[in-house]
Amino acid sequence: MELGAAEPPRLSEAIDVLEKHLDSRVFLVGQRFTLADASLSCSLHHFQTKGLATQLPRATKRWLGTCTAHEAFSVVTGTASAPAAAASGASASAPAAPFASAEPLVARYSSCVGGRTHIARIVSSPDKGASLIGQQVSVCGWVKTAREANKGAILFVELNDGSTPNNIQVVIDSKAKGFDSLKGQCGTGASLRCTGKVVQSPGGKQAVELLVVDADDAVVLFGGVDAKEYPLAKKHHSHEYLRSIAHLRPRSNYIGCVARVRAALAQATHEFFRSRGFLYVHTPLITAADCEGAGEMFQVTTMIQDMEKEGKNSLPKGADGKTDYTKDFFCKPAFLTVSGQLSVENYCCALSNVYTFGPTFRAENSHTSRHLAEFWMIEPELAFANITDDMDCAEDYLKYCVKYAMDHNREDLDWFDGQIEKGLVARLENLLAEPFGRVTYTEAGHSMLEVLGML
Amino acid sequence: MELGAAEPPRLSEAIDVLEKHLDSRVFLVGQRFTLADASLSCSLHHFQTKGLATQLPRATKRWLGTCTAHEAFSVVTGTASAPAAAASGASASAPAAPFASAEPLVARYSSCVGGRTHIARIVSSPDKGASLIGQQVSVCGWVKTAREANKGAILFVELNDGSTPNNIQVVIDSKAKGFDSLKGQCGTGASLRCTGKVVQSPGGKQAVELLVVDADDAVVLFGGVDAKEYPLAKKHHSHEYLRSIAHLRPRSNYIGCVARVRAALAQATHEFFRSRGFLYVHTPLITAADCEGAGEMFQVTTMIQDMEKEGKNSLPKGADGKTDYTKDFFCKPAFLTVSGQLSVENYCCALSNVYTFGPTFRAENSHTSRHLAEFWMIEPELAFANITDDMDCAEDYLKYCVKYAMDHNREDLDWFDGQIEKGLVARLENLLAEPFGRVTYTEAGHSMLEVLGML
Repeated sequence: MELGAAEPPRLSEAIDVLEKHLDSRVFLVGQRFTLADASLSCSLHHFQTKGLATQLPRATKRWLGTCTAHEAFSVVTGTASAPAAAASGASASAPAAPFASAEPLVARYSSCVGGRTHIARIVSSPDKGASLIGQQVSVCGWVKTAREANKGAILFVELNDGSTPNNIQVVIDSKAKGFDSLKGQCGTGASLRCTGKVVQSPGGKQAVELLVVDADDAVVLFGGVDAKEYPLAKKHHSHEYLRSIAHLRPRSNYIGCVARVRAALAQATHEFFRSRGFLYVHTPLITAADCEGAGEMFQVTTMIQDMEKEGKNSLPKGADGKTDYTKDFFCKPAFLTVSGQLSVENYCCALSNVYTFGPTFRAENSHTSRHLAEFWMIEPELAFANITDDMDCAEDYLKYCVKYAMDHNREDLDWFDGQIEKGLVARLENLLAEPFGRVTYTEAGHSMLEVLGML
Repeated sequence: MELGAAEPPRLSEAIDVLEKHLDSRVFLVGQRFTLADASLSCSLHHFQTKGLATQLPRATKRWLGTCTAHEAFSVVTGTASAPAAAASGASASAPAAPFASAEPLVARYSSCVGGRTHIARIVSSPDKGASLIGQQVSVCGWVKTAREANKGAILFVELNDGSTPNNIQVVIDSKAKGFDSLKGQCGTGASLRCTGKVVQSPGGKQAVELLVVDADDAVVLFGGVDAKEYPLAKKHHSHEYLRSIAHLRPRSNYIGCVARVRAALAQATHEFFRSRGFLYVHTPLITAADCEGAGEMFQVTTMIQDMEKEGKNSLPKGADGKTDYTKDFFCKPAFLTVSGQLSVENYCCALSNVYTFGPTFRAENSHTSRHLAEFWMIEPELAFANITDDMDCAEDYLKYCVKYAMDHNREDLDWFDGQIEKGLVARLENLLAEPFGRVTYTEAGHSMLEVLGML
């Protein structure tokens, strides 16, 4: 670009030169934001302020976004570095994300890979990663999708590490160290470490992306995947199909979101009860008591194995012709509990407010949605309390859990809202906004008869 | 007391009058601290400052302590209200108690009993209850010990509600409402609500006690106990004996302390892992996989019950003469898991760092201390990590848990130190103070041979 030439080059030609230069570089000179970037980006800044940035080519647009989001830019232009954050739709009053900015940038216990950053710490932080622009970070995870561009010179990878349902877009240039190892190995499910620089994303889908392009950037393939052989695709899979690949299904969006929300609700449960002075009690699972008299229990025994080991055909019998349980492990019939209630009530009558949170079992062959064979159940027991105290506790607990999930797992809930149950988030917001209605048993019966048209 | 009489009465006579007056009253006039208390207690204050307070009779000493601990006292004497707090041995830098002063005085979900205060909120708060002196509170709980005094006119009750191993001493005067209902019913284990005023305790054992003495104080008996019939006494009981009264053993100091520490360690576990970005995963307990190949598994079946219901003598057999598991609940042999590791590893390879915390089972008939038939186990899985990361995590986790228990359960640990294992607290303090030693497998083997005298 010769300025002051007899006939100055057209702007579009200058932009072409710039685009070509930036195609394999994060900044104009070297590995960091310099005066060169500040100076040139100021000249081009009016493109952005006039809303013309979308007309700039890809690399130039990304570079300009990265520059104007940089803290140093405000020193030059006298403006705050707000545009990037504002553009991402984040605000200071955003609810606490699971990986708030207070979270260290480098995750603990990741020295093995030279220190990795949780992907949520970037894309799910309140500013959607804007404050990290220009920094070099390493992320590890599994490929959700990968596609080539520029005749194989660039690889676009959506990487996920489970810390958020959202992926980080990684742009890997063929000049980056380790690029060649990805050839034919970077299908969905491949395990990678990507070290690159956080830059403003030219696309509207995400605020930032990771650019692996320079000599000091690198990609490491931990485990390659041949896309043709991999049983999980980008498309929707049925729950039944996912059950047939139980070892891989946690990698589906569905199970991932369920796992994150379930973990959050378990945490909320413990926080809620402990903050109110309830003691957590582990009640026995193997029991001789049929707590609720339901009778649908699984038996726990070592007698069948003993019988099979000895090559016998029948279980030991007593003189009365009945099964001789003195030969069983516990010397009497033993079952899996259908409820921890009986045990935890003993604790309640000694230590006042307590709760259990553990697995429970029902051998119901009905295959209805009523009870799974195995499920986790929360059973609080309140001492010196009546039904009103109990209802207050139940309402507070439900609202605490919903609020916790809304604050910490909004991205997961948004995914459920979009893919599984439209209107979910609005329904949860309504649950938080309104006090619960309370009716007597008689009123409830009356309402039901009305709905059934029997009144 | 006529002041200015020709021959002024001896001080001891005046004290006698005061003692008789205060024997059935918390304050000199009415139900609250008045100018009368402030004025007279200032006159007697020099007894306290000169260390002569121990020579005062019981009620007077308690009243004087209550007055001088009162905030208003400093207005009159110009001194701070520190003595009570200082006397109790508490300091501002005391570790966070589970029921810190931030905890509301009236516990949630206790409207049924007119609002109760957790006993820990009083006796285990950093100032040991000093700031509550003069306030009326209600406590509910179970009698640890009760003894009569003054020919049955006063009942001293040690009450516990499980929120702390320490009891609150309740002094119930025969003039208090409900006193008569306690006759013969207030043995160890009786369930009570006591409404009275927090006063300075004249004894050295506790900083404050609860005085149930006035017309607006009351005691309510929820469940009486005839001391002769009750299987738990103040004395030490063996673990074997406690096992034979499983429904009552949570009321023993031993099981109470274990329950509180166990609940705290569970909470610490969840806090530790969640704050470091680990997801909590519930892995299946009923499984067809023998995770560690140990083989010592419990079988889960409904076949024996089916056989017994049908009056048959043997389990269903297939054409090959072997047990026909297609007739069992899961249509194949099913067992209780010996480890959640296999399942949680699948989650780790999809969502990175995860952990399980749940029950595990071993059908080992050896009755060694190695494995219980049923126990809870924590299994973290780290992604993108090596053995050094793993060791860092293990050391951090152990220290976090011990620190948590030391901060929140110091009273329980002190009880263990005194009753079960001398030197426990010092050993835990040492664990927190020193970095863990790390040796190779070879070095560990060498050390062991040295200890065994084989080198």
